[in-house]
Amino acid sequence: MTGRAGGLGVRVGVLGAGVVGSQVVRLLIEQADELSARVGAKLELAAVAVRRPARHPDIPAELLTTDASAVVADPDVDVVVEVIGGIEPTKDLLLTALNRGAGVVTANKALLAEDGPQLYRAADAAGADLYFEAAVAGAIPLIRPLRESLAGDRIVRIMGIVNGTTNFILSNMVESGMGYHEALAEATRLGYAEADPTADVDGFDAAAKAAIMASIGFHTRVGASDVYREGIAAVSVADIAAAREIGCTVKLLAICERVAGPDGGEAVSARVHPVMLPTSHLLAAVDGAYNAVYVEAEAAGRLMFYGPGAGGAPTASAVLGDLVAVARNKVAGGRGPRESSYAALPILPIGDVPSKYHISLDVDDKAGVLAAVATAFSDGGVSISTVRQEGRGDDARLVVVTHSAPDAALAGTVRRLADLDSVRAVTSVMRVTGDMR
Amino acid sequence: MTGRAGGLGVRVGVLGAGVVGSQVVRLLIEQADELSARVGAKLELAAVAVRRPARHPDIPAELLTTDASAVVADPDVDVVVEVIGGIEPTKDLLLTALNRGAGVVTANKALLAEDGPQLYRAADAAGADLYFEAAVAGAIPLIRPLRESLAGDRIVRIMGIVNGTTNFILSNMVESGMGYHEALAEATRLGYAEADPTADVDGFDAAAKAAIMASIGFHTRVGASDVYREGIAAVSVADIAAAREIGCTVKLLAICERVAGPDGGEAVSARVHPVMLPTSHLLAAVDGAYNAVYVEAEAAGRLMFYGPGAGGAPTASAVLGDLVAVARNKVAGGRGPRESSYAALPILPIGDVPSKYHISLDVDDKAGVLAAVATAFSDGGVSISTVRQEGRGDDARLVVVTHSAPDAALAGTVRRLADLDSVRAVTSVMRVTGDMR
Repeated sequence: MTGRAGGLGVRVGVLGAGVVGSQVVRLLIEQADELSARVGAKLELAAVAVRRPARHPDIPAELLTTDASAVVADPDVDVVVEVIGGIEPTKDLLLTALNRGAGVVTANKALLAEDGPQLYRAADAAGADLYFEAAVAGAIPLIRPLRESLAGDRIVRIMGIVNGTTNFILSNMVESGMGYHEALAEATRLGYAEADPTADVDGFDAAAKAAIMASIGFHTRVGASDVYREGIAAVSVADIAAAREIGCTVKLLAICERVAGPDGGEAVSARVHPVMLPTSHLLAAVDGAYNAVYVEAEAAGRLMFYGPGAGGAPTASAVLGDLVAVARNKVAGGRGPRESSYAALPILPIGDVPSKYHISLDVDDKAGVLAAVATAFSDGGVSISTVRQEGRGDDARLVVVTHSAPDAALAGTVRRLADLDSVRAVTSVMRVTGDMR
Repeated sequence: MTGRAGGLGVRVGVLGAGVVGSQVVRLLIEQADELSARVGAKLELAAVAVRRPARHPDIPAELLTTDASAVVADPDVDVVVEVIGGIEPTKDLLLTALNRGAGVVTANKALLAEDGPQLYRAADAAGADLYFEAAVAGAIPLIRPLRESLAGDRIVRIMGIVNGTTNFILSNMVESGMGYHEALAEATRLGYAEADPTADVDGFDAAAKAAIMASIGFHTRVGASDVYREGIAAVSVADIAAAREIGCTVKLLAICERVAGPDGGEAVSARVHPVMLPTSHLLAAVDGAYNAVYVEAEAAGRLMFYGPGAGGAPTASAVLGDLVAVARNKVAGGRGPRESSYAALPILPIGDVPSKYHISLDVDDKAGVLAAVATAFSDGGVSISTVRQEGRGDDARLVVVTHSAPDAALAGTVRRLADLDSVRAVTSVMRVTGDMR
């Protein structure tokens, strides 16, 4: 352990001084007394590792260093705050800190989704704290409720809007009727989307967060590559109009569920995809760049957490909350919650995950079409909940909402539908999330 | 300390087996293995103190006792879970447990609002944990976010719907147009209101929760008697109609704010009263018996927490989350966050608290009325934001929304208005909470 904590205060090393790090450093300096009061010992900023010290005139020069390796190895640094991101060399830096018993606070979702279990194990072996509230949904207290508040409950489902960029784009499409490319361009222009928006619009960012939420919610190792992922690039104006017709809006959701496994036991499903969500659902009202996560637990019932999902100051708030907790533990000689994958539930492949679907078909306006379509559903093993015939002649359409069916059965059914002579085109296929689900 | 924790597991004594306690006991027995895995040591139910053991056939007889004093004094009991409520003898029982270093988990809002500081001090002196997530807003993780997630931030405002009974009644009045007494009768019939609804409808329950939220949010001692309190009994159908006309709904809110103090420094305002809240506000959509708390912090921005605010199972979930945390701390030898009132901000009297107001007046339909009314406002030191004239003849009305003004100035102005010859009646006076505030 550090040997310094207690009487001598707690010394903090910060890695990175970008959008989040600069706010963390500012608050650590400005609110030093208040933070120390909450820790119960002096909280002291010992070092800030950056690439180019000259770019940080606001940070006292004597704190700046370019040598992150020295900061994580320094036995006088009790807690390391990591806000540089990336997998390498960040992982090795954090392992060095954890291995010598230093506490670690990180906002690095990609690293946790990729190598979380290795970090958890290192923390456990050394009796060190590893906190990561800022890694999912920015300032929204979510990790702490999942790890701690609900530790005596059984989480059934976590469903979140955890990517502000895609939510901003979809909100814009819904409100203004503009298409995906136009909405993306506006998001880029306004600074809500990065120059290369791939990580956001293709769902990689949300998938990393889903992996973290599923791992800690279900005590099971879920990596980013275990998360089924569809982005929003294929969401069309027609999809959004179709959603509106059935009282829904379209959201990109990260969904982590406890589901029935293939062997009759329990399994975990973790996935990111667009969903038609009833406008009466709490998450439907979450617009723009805000994030919200809906959690359903056996005893607690339905909870929702809402707030800014990104940004320097909000993320810094989450980092500092973790820092105070880790520092308190250092002073008291205790430890925060540990992560383990003791439940080790199997991860259900997307093909086996049941969903309801909304499907729009352009069809020939002639007798027998409905029968042919209904047969295709029946042969595909998908049961129809409602079907609506619309338009005449060249505009004839069928709109089908299915009962819950395994994803693979639905995919097979869509192929059958596309092969029908009387179906001119399958124009919209999207999962529907029912009621409060 | 206990001397038993660690290798030998953590032994739990439960006080009370009513609506919440029976669920806590059930979950402790049913999920013993899962809970122990989360604690990292065996979590063992040692005793359940009840008044009449014969009424609890579901609880193993060997666990039942009528001697709560023996449970809290038993050196083999590491953690005491208190779900009996009331001030006495509960306070002495918990002090006994804390004084010998046992951890305490309580759902007792009245006791915390009344004697929280005494309990916090006892916990601190003995190095014992005191957790109380279940005391405010049932299963909604709120205390932990306030105490821990936002420990590195500065909370500016906490605004919550924290009483399900009054929210159910007001929602019903808004939706169905029924009056207060009719809505209360329906709430009673459906089991949402108790036979004696005073604690709920007069705001005592919400005031106790406001006291707890203000105390931990602003690190200042705020007792229930420091909280200004107005209930919902005076909310009329006319108030609700008036709110609708300006795009608002009526909610009973517990509001805790960091405000400017009389000496130019900071102060705290804690109050419970009905408010006209814009329908676009997140809290406006919280209907029925649900609870939600909106928190604004300097760095984190605007957060909201939503969920069931009462009920046996949800409250038991919150209790168990705390129990796991306290048990983990016992095993690790650490401690959870401590409460202190180091900030010790003054509490601003309601008369000095600024609010916007909505005021409806029945007036004579004659020249000079508006001038007389405007003069009354001006003389009272209250600035008018908008004024609307409605109706003619016997139905002539003025509807005024003020700029923010101290409560005392408003009260004086209302007296001036009532004294005007041309004002037949002041029919509605209610605070308005603006925009996202």
